[in-house]
Amino acid sequence: MSPGLMAAEMLEQPDVLARFAARFDDHADRVRAILPQPLGGVVFLARGSSDNAAVYGRYLAELVSGRPAGLAAPSLLTLYDAPVDYDGRLVVALSQSGATPEIVTVCERLRSAGARTVAIVNDAASPLATVAEVPIAIDAGAERAVPATKTVTAQLLAVAAVAAALGPAPFSAADLAALPHAVRTLLADRAEPRVLAERLAGAERLFVVARGLLQAAALEAALKIKETARIVAEGISTADFRHGPIAAVDRDVPVLAFEHAGPAARDVRELVAELETRGARVARLAVGDAVPEALAVIPAVVRAQQLALELALARGLDPDAPAGLSKITATH
Amino acid sequence: MSPGLMAAEMLEQPDVLARFAARFDDHADRVRAILPQPLGGVVFLARGSSDNAAVYGRYLAELVSGRPAGLAAPSLLTLYDAPVDYDGRLVVALSQSGATPEIVTVCERLRSAGARTVAIVNDAASPLATVAEVPIAIDAGAERAVPATKTVTAQLLAVAAVAAALGPAPFSAADLAALPHAVRTLLADRAEPRVLAERLAGAERLFVVARGLLQAAALEAALKIKETARIVAEGISTADFRHGPIAAVDRDVPVLAFEHAGPAARDVRELVAELETRGARVARLAVGDAVPEALAVIPAVVRAQQLALELALARGLDPDAPAGLSKITATH
Repeated sequence: MSPGLMAAEMLEQPDVLARFAARFDDHADRVRAILPQPLGGVVFLARGSSDNAAVYGRYLAELVSGRPAGLAAPSLLTLYDAPVDYDGRLVVALSQSGATPEIVTVCERLRSAGARTVAIVNDAASPLATVAEVPIAIDAGAERAVPATKTVTAQLLAVAAVAAALGPAPFSAADLAALPHAVRTLLADRAEPRVLAERLAGAERLFVVARGLLQAAALEAALKIKETARIVAEGISTADFRHGPIAAVDRDVPVLAFEHAGPAARDVRELVAELETRGARVARLAVGDAVPEALAVIPAVVRAQQLALELALARGLDPDAPAGLSKITATH
Repeated sequence: MSPGLMAAEMLEQPDVLARFAARFDDHADRVRAILPQPLGGVVFLARGSSDNAAVYGRYLAELVSGRPAGLAAPSLLTLYDAPVDYDGRLVVALSQSGATPEIVTVCERLRSAGARTVAIVNDAASPLATVAEVPIAIDAGAERAVPATKTVTAQLLAVAAVAAALGPAPFSAADLAALPHAVRTLLADRAEPRVLAERLAGAERLFVVARGLLQAAALEAALKIKETARIVAEGISTADFRHGPIAAVDRDVPVLAFEHAGPAARDVRELVAELETRGARVARLAVGDAVPEALAVIPAVVRAQQLALELALARGLDPDAPAGLSKITATH
């Protein structure tokens, strides 16, 4: 087995986040300068891991701006050639590679349709950066492991910078400054994710639940676990989980629940209690309160990465090179 | 085993659809009368099966109106008490029971925040109908099986009526008139879903893929299969599937693909070919071309219901009463 590209790139995260945090206000200022007046709404445009950062953005942008936010449906433009009017919208395109053809095409199309455009990419020279008015480079450095890690958490922080341009952010400069250390502390503790992985490694199916601002962490955890550990994991909000999938849970299908002391805590706690009463196996992943809920998705995703890595190792898989995936996925 | 409430309610669908089709234009007119001028965008509000109808609505509404459409994030209002401005938005709330407290609350809140509101419900006297400006009753009759069937397809047709209010619809009056018969023809053929179920009944995990206007059928198929057959099924777009989950596919994890001769056909066909090359088991569900792609989600969902029912029976389960689900799910 390789020495561990994914593990090494995960350890770079505190530095990547600290570098981005130092430029956080500059990025927010650049976004503020192109905001439509008045702001009609915010649309996030992404696929894959980037789509999970988009879900976080969708919640945070609407919370901060008070205007409706949502996710683009790229196929409306690429398959159906829909004639759209995006006047008044801020479009935030996300792509780690900056080279997913579908995202580049749709960003261009929405800009032509009247949207103001921001692109969150790893490399400022990538195609997506060149078609958007405000490119935000996360500068996480080359990512060689196929499962994206440091680019995901940096993207999440970049999304928070976009949201900060839209109104009063629900986190402070001190919170931002504390984030890299909080992530470093998590990364130094491999015991908790390893214990969790030992409990879950035998599962072939898994639900990952969270709610509200942490929902993106559940989605990203499920994606990373599918990619690296080949467990069919599904991320879902606690509310939607109660509306159907809960019926598929039994002793063989454990549930991983993200917990944070924010407004969603009670809902998650009640679902966990109900599942335990029903005899389900529930693994709780406490995110800690070193950062406020509005930024907690970042440490939560770091914990999810650690868990996915340990699960892959426990199942004898190479987390750096999952079957059938390449770094740039060409969807049209 | 019971005589089969779910099966009986599925057979009511041609009549329910025919009754709604007869009132289709009236409903579209009622929505047209309250549209914001200009239309800022369309937001669908739902949970569970209704959320899948909302995904269909999200695609169709943007395709027809040219204005951004999306899905509400109810927790922003119910957990975070976000102060939002929905001026210029049309909000379309969906709930089979019309009594999910979270949906009723959020619909009221968004109306107070400036949105014009439509509620798609089964019963015009339900709480959700009373808080929206335009209630659209699908009048599908009481649904006693826990897995929603006739209310789902009727909801989908109601969503099409809302979309028809937003611009020139991509289907004709003749297409609408042909729909009940197309569904009746499918329901008369139990052989194809039974053969498919025999092939899939041994699976404990399953991916369901589609793209564009049929994506909602993949999501609904996955939900119904989870509820009734207790197989962990995940619905996903072919594009997002390529960005990660494809790595979790092996001989034990079959893929069910919806196929229709619309603009998404090539993308689905290419993914199927790639999966077959990789040795994956792919089950193809051809929707037929009796109705155009913009309405094909309805026959596709009927096929999914048939498959879920046959899968449940093949696995010795009672499809009418899945473990741990009640008809009205109380999320707050």
